[in-house]
Amino acid sequence: MSLTDQQKEDIKNQAEANYSTKRAISEGMEERLFIAHEVLDHGFIRVVDYMGNDSSIVQAARVSYGEGTRKSRDDKSLINYLIRHWHSTPFEMCELKLHIKLPVFVARQWIRHRTANVNEYSARYSILDKEFYIPEKVNLASQSSSNNQGRGEPLEDQEATKVINTLKTDSNRCYENYQDMLSNEKQKGLARELARMNLPMNIYTQWYWKTDLHNLFNFLRLRYDKHAQFEIRAYAEIICHITKAWVPLAYEAFEEYQLNNEQFSASALSCLKRLLDGEKVNQENSGLGKREWDDFCRAIGRAP
Amino acid sequence: MSLTDQQKEDIKNQAEANYSTKRAISEGMEERLFIAHEVLDHGFIRVVDYMGNDSSIVQAARVSYGEGTRKSRDDKSLINYLIRHWHSTPFEMCELKLHIKLPVFVARQWIRHRTANVNEYSARYSILDKEFYIPEKVNLASQSSSNNQGRGEPLEDQEATKVINTLKTDSNRCYENYQDMLSNEKQKGLARELARMNLPMNIYTQWYWKTDLHNLFNFLRLRYDKHAQFEIRAYAEIICHITKAWVPLAYEAFEEYQLNNEQFSASALSCLKRLLDGEKVNQENSGLGKREWDDFCRAIGRAP
Amino acid sequence: MSLTDQQKEDIKNQAEANYSTKRAISEGMEERLFIAHEVLDHGFIRVVDYMGNDSSIVQAARVSYGEGTRKSRDDKSLINYLIRHWHSTPFEMCELKLHIKLPVFVARQWIRHRTANVNEYSARYSILDKEFYIPEKVNLASQSSSNNQGRGEPLEDQEATKVINTLKTDSNRCYENYQDMLSNEKQKGLARELARMNLPMNIYTQWYWKTDLHNLFNFLRLRYDKHAQFEIRAYAEIICHITKAWVPLAYEAFEEYQLNNEQFSASALSCLKRLLDGEKVNQENSGLGKREWDDFCRAIGRAP
Amino acid sequence: MSLTDQQKEDIKNQAEANYSTKRAISEGMEERLFIAHEVLDHGFIRVVDYMGNDSSIVQAARVSYGEGTRKSRDDKSLINYLIRHWHSTPFEMCELKLHIKLPVFVARQWIRHRTANVNEYSARYSILDKEFYIPEKVNLASQSSSNNQGRGEPLEDQEATKVINTLKTDSNRCYENYQDMLSNEKQKGLARELARMNLPMNIYTQWYWKTDLHNLFNFLRLRYDKHAQFEIRAYAEIICHITKAWVPLAYEAFEEYQLNNEQFSASALSCLKRLLDGEKVNQENSGLGKREWDDFCRAIGRAP
Repeated sequence: MSLTDQQKEDIKNQAEANYSTKRAISEGMEERLFIAHEVLDHGFIRVVDYMGNDSSIVQAARVSYGEGTRKSRDDKSLINYLIRHWHSTPFEMCELKLHIKLPVFVARQWIRHRTANVNEYSARYSILDKEFYIPEKVNLASQSSSNNQGRGEPLEDQEATKVINTLKTDSNRCYENYQDMLSNEKQKGLARELARMNLPMNIYTQWYWKTDLHNLFNFLRLRYDKHAQFEIRAYAEIICHITKAWVPLAYEAFEEYQLNNEQFSASALSCLKRLLDGEKVNQENSGLGKREWDDFCRAIGRAP
Repeated sequence: MSLTDQQKEDIKNQAEANYSTKRAISEGMEERLFIAHEVLDHGFIRVVDYMGNDSSIVQAARVSYGEGTRKSRDDKSLINYLIRHWHSTPFEMCELKLHIKLPVFVARQWIRHRTANVNEYSARYSILDKEFYIPEKVNLASQSSSNNQGRGEPLEDQEATKVINTLKTDSNRCYENYQDMLSNEKQKGLARELARMNLPMNIYTQWYWKTDLHNLFNFLRLRYDKHAQFEIRAYAEIICHITKAWVPLAYEAFEEYQLNNEQFSASALSCLKRLLDGEKVNQENSGLGKREWDDFCRAIGRAP
Repeated sequence: MSLTDQQKEDIKNQAEANYSTKRAISEGMEERLFIAHEVLDHGFIRVVDYMGNDSSIVQAARVSYGEGTRKSRDDKSLINYLIRHWHSTPFEMCELKLHIKLPVFVARQWIRHRTANVNEYSARYSILDKEFYIPEKVNLASQSSSNNQGRGEPLEDQEATKVINTLKTDSNRCYENYQDMLSNEKQKGLARELARMNLPMNIYTQWYWKTDLHNLFNFLRLRYDKHAQFEIRAYAEIICHITKAWVPLAYEAFEEYQLNNEQFSASALSCLKRLLDGEKVNQENSGLGKREWDDFCRAIGRAP
Repeated sequence: MSLTDQQKEDIKNQAEANYSTKRAISEGMEERLFIAHEVLDHGFIRVVDYMGNDSSIVQAARVSYGEGTRKSRDDKSLINYLIRHWHSTPFEMCELKLHIKLPVFVARQWIRHRTANVNEYSARYSILDKEFYIPEKVNLASQSSSNNQGRGEPLEDQEATKVINTLKTDSNRCYENYQDMLSNEKQKGLARELARMNLPMNIYTQWYWKTDLHNLFNFLRLRYDKHAQFEIRAYAEIICHITKAWVPLAYEAFEEYQLNNEQFSASALSCLKRLLDGEKVNQENSGLGKREWDDFCRAIGRAP
């Protein structure tokens, strides 16, 4: 991870700040504010600001449901109820702002989550630093044979070494040529907005990213999933820890009902009922396709 | 304005709260937090939470523009630059959460601003209070003869008195019948989700409403406009005061460049240049339609 | 249902139109275009325009997945795969535009689906017609004793009759006073934007509503649900029929995987595995709350 | 421009299609459907589908305004009125779906327009083609000395030649290494989702992009602006031609009121009035900053 000296000084100043507020606070989050959590080789995630806590969710829900709910449920069971039934609006009342440094190919996946606010470092305006994501050998894997968009087995050491050398060499050469096109003693220098096109997609960029808790859970459900690409999952994992510290009741409910849940289609439910009635069900007589049957077996903890 | 005793107690507790935080704060906003600002006869607006301040806008913009901007511009001139060029993303980094009590017909206009988060009191779940908006006589006006969706002259006192009596009588009768359908000693009582349909649209509802500063400015530009309906403009006016206290630099720039600005079409610009060259221009030789010409004259401070 | 003569003539002209196009068409939808499907006592739904068909979903997905997918899967199994894994973007490539007439209290629920485009009849600009939703007796029910936001048993005939009389009388009186405030021989007449506040929420409004297929499925999942209010479900049901005619493969997949599916939380999955292993599980030893246990039993087709 | 043989065959089939529909059509658009308009060296834009025409805008507006508007204004003047007052909802009722091939660094700017639907070619799933954007010499410019995010003077021929050689050499080498990492006779081959990170950002990607006319105008206003980067402006220009053919009345109004308009701040309006009153105004006594004064002079056609 590489923070500039200016960033380090800013972080130090921010972390020592101490203001008085009437707003709802989250103790767990105050402890984590501004700290840079390392991700991959040069990346980081820092919480820059947040709005609300578990009680804010409850408070918003109680505006909707009126006084009747005040006594009948405690905060934890109300939050569980809301998550279980996919109520989204009370969770939209909490907001998180992160400062993230990440490789461009990860940023391109990330930005597809549209309901968020973003300020990204502009390579039209400023020069990008020489920082490229070079995976660790252990994370270099071959194409999955079963999943068209995933990884399979790790590469052998020799092939991994070669890949890493290629990535390093190409990154360095492209960056040197980027610099050279930008400024060269005897020449005018190419505009930054043009020169940047020579940079490979493992270069790091950074942005401020702000979203509400409902959309954050959507992001985490997709990106902390085992089918997500390892590199974005590394970021999602850190955000899971941060969210747990911020809104512990909501995060626990999210894990129980949305992250570690399973869905059964109409046909899968029918299989399930037959199984519970003691019938022998296999893929052939299940009415499910091969992949669906495999997923169904995995969900109920049986061998396909 | 009518707050329940529970709400009054909550407000008192919130306003006396005093937490320690590392987050950016706005002094002007801390003073206003939780206080109920009265609007119309029973409505109010309360700030429930906020995220960010003027510096947060600057900080987000500087992520985009990199180090180069740090010294060249102070905060005020950077914010002016951003507003002047309709940059939206740095303003999306500030967030405001309001608790609002408002008549249903105002809520129906308000909800058309889609980029916001809302938790509204549910009349399926709870019983609405007997509170109806009855305008003051001074705000009762006839249909505008020139503007199909606006008001013209005030009503004469006698007609105004009659209107107010009608509104009061119909509100009361409808509410009594609402109550009667809901619960009646000898009967089952109609479901709340059905009984509510008997209530006229001047009844008050309430909601939590959260949006970012960019979308708040969009709201204010449309709803603090002189063509907006008086009743929603009354809410927009209070929000203008709140926003000014919260982000004084951004609000000042908003007034200068977006609220009190004027736009000139290609044809109007052509008229303008002819006028500046000393030519006599009137509607006939302007190339503008009647209304456009009137708007053009108003914008440059001349009689049509 | 009441269409104006102008609307009837427009519908007739539209339904007789016959243009030549290179665009993808849906045979099932062409047959339904412009026809007014009746809903409730005065409401209707008409398809005004649509974009795309089942093949458009497949085509968009194949841009993402490249040539590899072209031969390996047929359209039906690709659409099933996409719906099963909650892929949203290919379904966003189809669009539906409806003309809907509906009571205001239904419109207030409907509008909460934010990702849609709406043009509503303006009661600032024009005068609302005298059309109010008066439920049929069979649809008048008491408040549910178990569900705070639902209906329970039907009302007895005598109580139902009384409710209907009340609704009719109040609607009529409020509308007469609305008309009287708007225009009265000897007076100026109140502005329309003010007079409308005297109208109860069972009055009909109308709008054009446009959304994409992904967001339409979200709408249908929530509003065709058995917990949705009867009145909005009546609209959702018609839209289900329309959607089935428009994109039969996508609709069938939606029913199988999203409408008639069930979700099991981490704890419910654990119960399920114990049951499949032959263990006796009841609410006490299940780790589930009372309501969750009931829902679990219902999902697997057992008595609680 | 390079279309695959498959794409060429698809385009041929689509362009020869001829269906019968009752939907609104646009003659100008039917002629352009599916045709690939070349952009830059390998890029293209093709209209894949559209919904609505000028009349659809009028029709939606008339739902809002009721019968009163039917006779008073013709289509053209109603559309002008809507655009002039920045009414957005009637324009949201038209929809455009494009197939676009574009360099990744352009795609990264483009995607920041969030209110759109996108299906992008997945480099996790499929292998990217060897197509890189290599600018023409005439479009290679030095960094602007006055605008931190723009271009200044063209490069001298010798420097331009060197830049082009660098871009070609690095693109080729990176692509060869990409291929080599993916598959190599004696090795496992790196997963596609990893290998792609070695590709520079001038490589071409492609996507389906769908948006409504209101958001399309927002896109064009920003990206057809003279401060937009040349490469994205090249795409915006083609889309302007397409839009003009599709909805000629709306496009003409857009040009007049939104593309070629000027905005004057409160202070600039005050200067304008002083000028019109015959006063001598210069930057010093204008109350405007240097840049604002320059912009003001440019807007009224005077030398600063």
